Amino acid sequence: MPASAQETYREVMTVEPPEAATPFEAATFEFVFGQVWSRPGLTRRERRWVTLTCVAAADSPQPIADHVYAALHSGDMTLPEMLEFVLHFAVYCGWPKASHLEGEVRAQWARLHAERGEPAPPWPRIDDAELGPSDWQQRMELGAKEFAEVNLISAPPANTPYQHAGILNFVFGHVWQRPGLTRRDRRLITIPAVALDDSPMPLRSHVTSAVESGDITPAELDEIVLQFSAYYGFAKGQALQDAADQARVKAPV
Amino acid sequence: MPASAQETYREVMTVEPPEAATPFEAATFEFVFGQVWSRPGLTRRERRWVTLTCVAAADSPQPIADHVYAALHSGDMTLPEMLEFVLHFAVYCGWPKASHLEGEVRAQWARLHAERGEPAPPWPRIDDAELGPSDWQQRMELGAKEFAEVNLISAPPANTPYQHAGILNFVFGHVWQRPGLTRRDRRLITIPAVALDDSPMPLRSHVTSAVESGDITPAELDEIVLQFSAYYGFAKGQALQDAADQARVKAPV
Amino acid sequence: MPASAQETYREVMTVEPPEAATPFEAATFEFVFGQVWSRPGLTRRERRWVTLTCVAAADSPQPIADHVYAALHSGDMTLPEMLEFVLHFAVYCGWPKASHLEGEVRAQWARLHAERGEPAPPWPRIDDAELGPSDWQQRMELGAKEFAEVNLISAPPANTPYQHAGILNFVFGHVWQRPGLTRRDRRLITIPAVALDDSPMPLRSHVTSAVESGDITPAELDEIVLQFSAYYGFAKGQALQDAADQARVKAPV
Repeated sequence: MPASAQETYREVMTVEPPEAATPFEAATFEFVFGQVWSRPGLTRRERRWVTLTCVAAADSPQPIADHVYAALHSGDMTLPEMLEFVLHFAVYCGWPKASHLEGEVRAQWARLHAERGEPAPPWPRIDDAELGPSDWQQRMELGAKEFAEVNLISAPPANTPYQHAGILNFVFGHVWQRPGLTRRDRRLITIPAVALDDSPMPLRSHVTSAVESGDITPAELDEIVLQFSAYYGFAKGQALQDAADQARVKAPV
Repeated sequence: MPASAQETYREVMTVEPPEAATPFEAATFEFVFGQVWSRPGLTRRERRWVTLTCVAAADSPQPIADHVYAALHSGDMTLPEMLEFVLHFAVYCGWPKASHLEGEVRAQWARLHAERGEPAPPWPRIDDAELGPSDWQQRMELGAKEFAEVNLISAPPANTPYQHAGILNFVFGHVWQRPGLTRRDRRLITIPAVALDDSPMPLRSHVTSAVESGDITPAELDEIVLQFSAYYGFAKGQALQDAADQARVKAPV
Repeated sequence: MPASAQETYREVMTVEPPEAATPFEAATFEFVFGQVWSRPGLTRRERRWVTLTCVAAADSPQPIADHVYAALHSGDMTLPEMLEFVLHFAVYCGWPKASHLEGEVRAQWARLHAERGEPAPPWPRIDDAELGPSDWQQRMELGAKEFAEVNLISAPPANTPYQHAGILNFVFGHVWQRPGLTRRDRRLITIPAVALDDSPMPLRSHVTSAVESGDITPAELDEIVLQFSAYYGFAKGQALQDAADQARVKAPV
């Protein structure tokens, strides 16, 4: 393994690299760490959002454990940020996968402090006030406003349970407005989520609005595509690249 | 194609069966329609919930369109029930896939009325009161109660955004309590959803509680496994069967 | 269980068939083994590539373990071939699922030798030279050439990280050129991978080029569709059949 790939592995995974005994492991070091994680264009923390979304969706227990540990151990993510990520992930990839992910956040948080021989600090307290305004009309109005700011199109009519109780009241009426992650963070999580979910409209709309809003530059989007392809495969990566190419054409340079 | 498989195909898909020109198509008629849909043990409408969840998750555009059309055309599901299904599906399989699904519900509803040469009836109205109580404390209490009734275990502490804003306030504090579908309907949707999501704990807990609550009998659960396997494959089907076998051992006979 | 299905089960899984106690298990024997694995048109080893890809993507732990064991135990695949498969699979279905798969290859290889009461032979050595030419210009040129040979269209411009570092330098600049599997083997792995990934362009292009290149006949492709449908479900199977039907129309007969 090249020394630089080893070094990147240590920085990202926060543990010593194992010996490469198989073609898969050799390619993991040279390609995934030596050629993808080491690139400029996104910070390590930003690449982690893309990667964490992919591994959490892929249901593979060990990579989920390893990347959650590394995110917390490196200090790139705080515990409240990781817990906020679980909620955002639940919306885009479904509650069951998020349930497993949250279990790993708890387990790796405990492991981290056990390794340091320290008691884990007190768990962050949560207050009902964090649920946001409870006046339904106000909430729907704020949801429509947030929808428009994130998607750069008007909110849909609230004439189905999915749009009414779901999209406007909960997803944009609450989750996207929560202060625990920035909108840019949420875009770095949402883009890989819609890419792995394959639904053509959400894929196109989230990729386009990320660029048009100025939250993500076209060059950063290209880096997201590569990071995503390594962790979720080049087949879905191509559909994401196509959406990125279309967004670039539309975006003001 | 055997005549009985043809007849089942007509009843389920509500259109004439095409000619079988490939091994896939021959197996679709003989196995999926001739041997699975034709079984007793679940009603056609119940098999539709399992099937609709599978095809919506599998991202395959034509089967989604065909099964949504057939569900509405047969009269097995009303439009409000299909729209309620979209919201429940969104929770378990993520918002992006639900967005595509809801687009198809609208499209097939329009197609159905166009074919009949009738105008579509007025779209169902939705009122903010359907969002349930807006007092956060009351909502959390009702969420904890619903969680316990559905899962047959105590609600988790609300000490993460996922559990607090997500599971207790929204998923059990609202969605499962909505009157548009029965709890049995929601179980027929949730079981295939957790099976295709692969998360071990939600899979085990939803399968076990479905049986222990008496909402689904062990024999019905076995039928769900087979219906699921046809539409989401025998690989994931085996994990669902394993969970079903464990639930059967625990359940009072 | 019909005697012939039992016999096929023994040949494929390399263990005694269990009793069928549920509709799922009865259908597994009668349909999956009795009607799918027993068909002519693809060899058992070829059906294994389709099946291994499906079970590895489906995240179902027991089927992954069972099919990896059976592939090695039967002698249909060597250990180096299985390890080469893991790398190819990683490219199309992402690193996390491949990581779990490789863990099972190691575990089943150990189990196999433990059952025989033999020490496992020395692990195959890997040399950095297997990573191919490190002159980037040469690598990009070879990548463009391989891309054209596999896809039967010109390589795309290398103007994004996905195309440059990903597709041309790594996927076609290295992986497809590795000697450990034949191009036909790689097609038998890639076709189910793009079918389960749902990305419309890769699905169409890999299915079409497999047939147009003469590497896979239209009749063999139909067998792949059925084998895939059994393990990944008839919903995604239908999209693959549609792509196969289009490829057949274009292909010289």
